[in-house]
Amino acid sequence: MFLRVVERRDDGIVVRGAKAHQTGSLSSHEIICLPTRAMRQGDEDYAVAIAVPQDTPGLIHVVGRSSLDTREVDGCDIGNFRYSKYCPTLIFNDVFVPKERVFLCGETEFAVDMVVKFSSFHRQSHGGCKAGKIDCMIGTALTMMEYNGTTKAGHHKQKVIDMIHRAETLYGCCLASSYEGKQQPSGAYFIDTVLANASKIHEGKEMAEATRLMIDVCGGFVADLPSDRDFANSEIGHLLKKYLKGVDTNPVENRIKLYRLAEKLALESADTISDIHGGGSPEAHRVTIFRESNVESKKKAAKRLAGIED
Amino acid sequence: MFLRVVERRDDGIVVRGAKAHQTGSLSSHEIICLPTRAMRQGDEDYAVAIAVPQDTPGLIHVVGRSSLDTREVDGCDIGNFRYSKYCPTLIFNDVFVPKERVFLCGETEFAVDMVVKFSSFHRQSHGGCKAGKIDCMIGTALTMMEYNGTTKAGHHKQKVIDMIHRAETLYGCCLASSYEGKQQPSGAYFIDTVLANASKIHEGKEMAEATRLMIDVCGGFVADLPSDRDFANSEIGHLLKKYLKGVDTNPVENRIKLYRLAEKLALESADTISDIHGGGSPEAHRVTIFRESNVESKKKAAKRLAGIED
Amino acid sequence: MFLRVVERRDDGIVVRGAKAHQTGSLSSHEIICLPTRAMRQGDEDYAVAIAVPQDTPGLIHVVGRSSLDTREVDGCDIGNFRYSKYCPTLIFNDVFVPKERVFLCGETEFAVDMVVKFSSFHRQSHGGCKAGKIDCMIGTALTMMEYNGTTKAGHHKQKVIDMIHRAETLYGCCLASSYEGKQQPSGAYFIDTVLANASKIHEGKEMAEATRLMIDVCGGFVADLPSDRDFANSEIGHLLKKYLKGVDTNPVENRIKLYRLAEKLALESADTISDIHGGGSPEAHRVTIFRESNVESKKKAAKRLAGIED
Amino acid sequence: MFLRVVERRDDGIVVRGAKAHQTGSLSSHEIICLPTRAMRQGDEDYAVAIAVPQDTPGLIHVVGRSSLDTREVDGCDIGNFRYSKYCPTLIFNDVFVPKERVFLCGETEFAVDMVVKFSSFHRQSHGGCKAGKIDCMIGTALTMMEYNGTTKAGHHKQKVIDMIHRAETLYGCCLASSYEGKQQPSGAYFIDTVLANASKIHEGKEMAEATRLMIDVCGGFVADLPSDRDFANSEIGHLLKKYLKGVDTNPVENRIKLYRLAEKLALESADTISDIHGGGSPEAHRVTIFRESNVESKKKAAKRLAGIED
Repeated sequence: MFLRVVERRDDGIVVRGAKAHQTGSLSSHEIICLPTRAMRQGDEDYAVAIAVPQDTPGLIHVVGRSSLDTREVDGCDIGNFRYSKYCPTLIFNDVFVPKERVFLCGETEFAVDMVVKFSSFHRQSHGGCKAGKIDCMIGTALTMMEYNGTTKAGHHKQKVIDMIHRAETLYGCCLASSYEGKQQPSGAYFIDTVLANASKIHEGKEMAEATRLMIDVCGGFVADLPSDRDFANSEIGHLLKKYLKGVDTNPVENRIKLYRLAEKLALESADTISDIHGGGSPEAHRVTIFRESNVESKKKAAKRLAGIED
Repeated sequence: MFLRVVERRDDGIVVRGAKAHQTGSLSSHEIICLPTRAMRQGDEDYAVAIAVPQDTPGLIHVVGRSSLDTREVDGCDIGNFRYSKYCPTLIFNDVFVPKERVFLCGETEFAVDMVVKFSSFHRQSHGGCKAGKIDCMIGTALTMMEYNGTTKAGHHKQKVIDMIHRAETLYGCCLASSYEGKQQPSGAYFIDTVLANASKIHEGKEMAEATRLMIDVCGGFVADLPSDRDFANSEIGHLLKKYLKGVDTNPVENRIKLYRLAEKLALESADTISDIHGGGSPEAHRVTIFRESNVESKKKAAKRLAGIED
Repeated sequence: MFLRVVERRDDGIVVRGAKAHQTGSLSSHEIICLPTRAMRQGDEDYAVAIAVPQDTPGLIHVVGRSSLDTREVDGCDIGNFRYSKYCPTLIFNDVFVPKERVFLCGETEFAVDMVVKFSSFHRQSHGGCKAGKIDCMIGTALTMMEYNGTTKAGHHKQKVIDMIHRAETLYGCCLASSYEGKQQPSGAYFIDTVLANASKIHEGKEMAEATRLMIDVCGGFVADLPSDRDFANSEIGHLLKKYLKGVDTNPVENRIKLYRLAEKLALESADTISDIHGGGSPEAHRVTIFRESNVESKKKAAKRLAGIED
Repeated sequence: MFLRVVERRDDGIVVRGAKAHQTGSLSSHEIICLPTRAMRQGDEDYAVAIAVPQDTPGLIHVVGRSSLDTREVDGCDIGNFRYSKYCPTLIFNDVFVPKERVFLCGETEFAVDMVVKFSSFHRQSHGGCKAGKIDCMIGTALTMMEYNGTTKAGHHKQKVIDMIHRAETLYGCCLASSYEGKQQPSGAYFIDTVLANASKIHEGKEMAEATRLMIDVCGGFVADLPSDRDFANSEIGHLLKKYLKGVDTNPVENRIKLYRLAEKLALESADTISDIHGGGSPEAHRVTIFRESNVESKKKAAKRLAGIED
């Protein structure tokens, strides 16, 4: 699953390999590829960074299955009417990249820096994105409470507070990562890596809990709501609508739509699993906060308080 | 969403209403219905307990959508080759129930006892079921570690231990609920309700964490693995298999199958959401352990230790 | 436990009542008192805000017991050689407050605003303080690993990472609360209350976990280390030092001092309990994030995604 | 910190070394010592198991400091009027052990079995003990709610339910470990080691949370309640009692006593730290559940469901 240079020409290079989980590759103008780990001598062919248009010859986008994918193709039981998410596997089946689109080719010593820079930005940006997703889940839970007639249930309100708490701590931590960014010699700003990675670890654990809380508040129909086609069915549709009504003041259609959204937010694989694996796997985030933290200053503080003189 | 008696005849009754989330209703011989909450005077029509064959006239099974449902219909990308799960909504469209199949009809005073008895059994049995599901997730994680070549990764082993810990605490707590069961005047045994409900609360929180851990160990292809049809494609199939190979000693087909299973275990809505809402909603489990616990004895113990004499 | 005005004179007021948990009151120049909850008509006597020197006649500081208090008085087994913490109960036994030191006296309508302003600042500042305390605990854990010879233990390193993660998410969230502060009409800046309260909730839960992790890494002598007087004892001191040595390269005295610090960090009541109750009780923080969050915008976002038009 | 044989005589052996954290050693008739880890060839002198009376010559009990230790000596501000806990460090300063009290002496091959057998029993028994301690904390919380007048606060009740949940899952899991015990060839029963260790891991994490919840419900005076001597003081005692009154129907003395108990339950080091380190350190519990679990059967189950044939 690595890209490597298989041919070096005067006007460019030919790359071969694959890249997994490329969110939105089909809707991007450019596919930008970087090394994904530190490289050393002997890895020169793999130390490659390029940008190619997404429809470059030889570049194959394989849209994998995601849990609710056929719903949109069928035009039925779509949970989120506005947006969708796909993360294709990209196969570089001997793709020619002209020279001016090659940024790294053999300079193994820069690979690790590219990884850290890119992944830290990616992990920081996740916090804003997913805090917003929790906000949507909070909105779903609160609106469902209205539709279900459970607005007064104290334990539901407590669960919404637990969700807000998670959205805000995630948002706050990723925001601090930006605010603490330092200007680089190039003039660009670079975020604080420890806070960025702490934010991503927080996301990896707390999104699952926020989702669980939304499901808890919304109820079991997140799992097994009848299809729009059943609701439209002349024999049973009116019966289903009668029994799924919820509170009187709200059209049953709204409740049905909201359950579909809850299902999408809770169970759409491409998105929910990026909570955990987006921007590198959780262990990578953990290794980074340890490596980038100033542990010596912490040890020094402890020794000072304890009255230990080395 | 309640059943009620709409007609009383000499030879039986006619019931109308609906029941949601009826796991496996189409593969059951009998549909047994009980009240779902305490009843009081005035609720006589709703205080009804019956058993009817699943193909009784007027009984409509509406199989709702679940997240991976069309995979099996399409015969493609099926994660679990052995079993499946559906939880239809049942509509009782004026179903006649002969006298000998009516167990409760208007005796509101027995409703609450039926609910507690049934739901406690249901919550207890969940513990054994779901501990077994975590065992399958542990097996998936460990086998994926072999296929991915990450068997030596210490953090992966730690996560598997976290999964075992959850499987065993859940199993242990539900097992204790059975062992502590007491014989009833009828001769039947009834499980310990506090332990049964504690077990269910534990499940509702820890299954989500066990699932998250399995996804963490398995990697991002739980989200977006290419389809069997792409793997079978003459142009790109061999490329996909090459890049998805994993360790040399294992056929890529096995790795693909295992990712499908991981996807099914993590994202199949009918099952994952029953972790939370199966056997009644989480708040019901909580209310029960408070009501059924001997809180007076705990207050007495505290006062004794504190030297407080009332 | 409220202050109230018992006499109004031309040159000032006389207040009576008490204030609990007044951190560091004896080392402060001024004791500033505010209302602690919303007030309404009829509460005029309680709507009082003042500042008095800490040695004002009639003001009694009752230093309560804290878990390790006598250690310092005895000059023995002191964990933190630099700092200490006491939270007296203050009794206002008819304290005269001159006019120029009275900021609120009967204006009940301003009470709630004073509470929110003060408590939000207090909750925000806690995040920086306690993130620093976790840093000291991280330093203690890492240094103890060196002294115990467990630096290579992978699970210990994982626990330290779990501590860093908690320090950084707490720090990040409280920092964001400051950065998002808005200038008030007075010219002063006021922090973001939702982020401040989210930070405090996070602290209330995660400090306990960070402490547990430090104890886990350090080992059982956090609980029951022999006294300095035993180490100094001519009969058993040399034996204790022999058996408590740890790694060869480190004097046993350092290990002893570090265990005392760990004990102080983990078990000093005045400080550990302020993790939970400092700046108001946890429920107050929760109520605040719900009240101050823009929940309508979240509901709107959910409806938009679901395709619901009201 | 190991015992070893320093002399072998015809009528017995002489042992030297130390044992840390020996709960209740001064109130035990016999001190029974076992190896604490697996031994191999060359470790013969350390492979020793003995029983000696606690007042055997050469056996020194060093009672370490615990966080609230001097309270009992001073006869003041004692939280738990019934029981106390001390965990001395035992120094074996060349203790002679007669032959009939030596159970293992050089047979290194049996060391590991002794460790596993003892530690598993110890870890299982902790579950019953500490579930009971949570029960006392629940009683304290509920009684304090009565004394503080917060019985109606929904969030307090939710926290008590969270405590009950922890007590019951811990109790259930350790109970199941006993019920699943198997008869050994000797006729004695031996508990299920996986469930015993799962129970101990659960304790190590959940006791801290149960304690945090009790503190949350009880309020800040767990940290800094004035001393009994201040309450007895002729000048300020009556004022303190006035301001600490709580609800009218309860004598202030009871509230004071209950806060002392809460302090003891939350902050007494010898006991709270045994939640984590009692019966071996947490990592030992984790390693054990992995080693003792039948992981092959779990992998087999996953493969069967995935349709993988090896």
